[in-house]
Amino acid sequence: MTELSEEITINGDAEELDPSKPLSDRLSLGVAARLSRYLQVLTQARKMGKDTISSQELSDYTHINSTQIRRDLSGFGKFGKRGVGYNVDSLVSQIRKILRTTGKHNIALFGAGNLGQAIAGSDIFADHGFRVVALFDKDADKVGHSVGENLTVRPYEDLHKVIRDEDVVVGVLAVPTAAAQEVADDLVEAGVKIIFNYSEALLQVPPEVTVHTSSPAVDLLYALYFYLT
Amino acid sequence: MTELSEEITINGDAEELDPSKPLSDRLSLGVAARLSRYLQVLTQARKMGKDTISSQELSDYTHINSTQIRRDLSGFGKFGKRGVGYNVDSLVSQIRKILRTTGKHNIALFGAGNLGQAIAGSDIFADHGFRVVALFDKDADKVGHSVGENLTVRPYEDLHKVIRDEDVVVGVLAVPTAAAQEVADDLVEAGVKIIFNYSEALLQVPPEVTVHTSSPAVDLLYALYFYLT
Repeated sequence: MTELSEEITINGDAEELDPSKPLSDRLSLGVAARLSRYLQVLTQARKMGKDTISSQELSDYTHINSTQIRRDLSGFGKFGKRGVGYNVDSLVSQIRKILRTTGKHNIALFGAGNLGQAIAGSDIFADHGFRVVALFDKDADKVGHSVGENLTVRPYEDLHKVIRDEDVVVGVLAVPTAAAQEVADDLVEAGVKIIFNYSEALLQVPPEVTVHTSSPAVDLLYALYFYLT
Repeated sequence: MTELSEEITINGDAEELDPSKPLSDRLSLGVAARLSRYLQVLTQARKMGKDTISSQELSDYTHINSTQIRRDLSGFGKFGKRGVGYNVDSLVSQIRKILRTTGKHNIALFGAGNLGQAIAGSDIFADHGFRVVALFDKDADKVGHSVGENLTVRPYEDLHKVIRDEDVVVGVLAVPTAAAQEVADDLVEAGVKIIFNYSEALLQVPPEVTVHTSSPAVDLLYALYFYLT
């Protein structure tokens, strides 16, 4: 199995550090990316009932070199048992602790269309300690409807109140491209620092705000390039 | 604006090449990743009606150093005009040509739930030359229903015939985690070489098949780590 885009994301760790923070404060971008990737696979493995996992299996799924994996994990005191591998639960807890993501982080989701409903109804965020605490839509016909297990579509006007009362740190935009900038502006004004953008809008935000734009087609183009050539 | 996960994907180009191909045959992983990222932003810019874009704007959206951008683009004969920037249309065509993605590539989509419907109804793949030619579901109640502009849900049994007749190169899995491996097995058997996995399953596939697993929560964890620390 080849995971092209992961390969360059994570291997060849250039130890790029944020110059604004002293070295001891945080992991390098490369290490944090590798740990996030291990955590994803370990979480999936746990869901599928696996108790242990070998460095070779971790390597197959992450496309990170198994020597690198053993080095990373031994670096924080985890040594796999030969012929048995690593304990999945214990590794999940350890990595979460290192990534400081043991807490719960609240998400506000915007857009109750098909994509918003798919996100609200899935575990993709919940498995990693994120909780969707509110779902907003501007369509009055959708407000008040139940979505997923315990969400009710709220009117957009409640944005500021909810962000403040629920301590929301991430805004997820599952809205049409034409509507995305306005929601981003309101999120920025409300103090949200991380925006996850599923629309195709090029969002303008201040420098202290991080935007992650989902780009499945680009990932696909990239995979296809290496398949075709 | 910070795009953390892109930064390590693309900067610090380690010039990692696929050892199975001679150097002259293909771009390095880093270059291909940067070009894909430029293409995404340029496509978005074009949709928003922009005719020109500066290297600084490209840098703001991709978080790739503007010197690197100018070097990449001048490398294939594109020079931005001072005070005007690059012509968006011309740059899109050129990058598509280099990435050899000027053709059309057919996708088969599996799962007509909320996520499948969101994908079928969006332009995310179409904008980049991919065409969803078939949507499958195992639920007999969904078969025959119209989704998006011109798709009708097809019975799962048609998989082999459709893959062959429509020359499908990519299978997109918008199915429940428990169903994903079986669909992947059938796609592999039908000769599909690229699988885009939206489920949480750890898919087992032969070495010649590329799996890309969508992992929004991991991207978010990663962004959050750098926000919290």
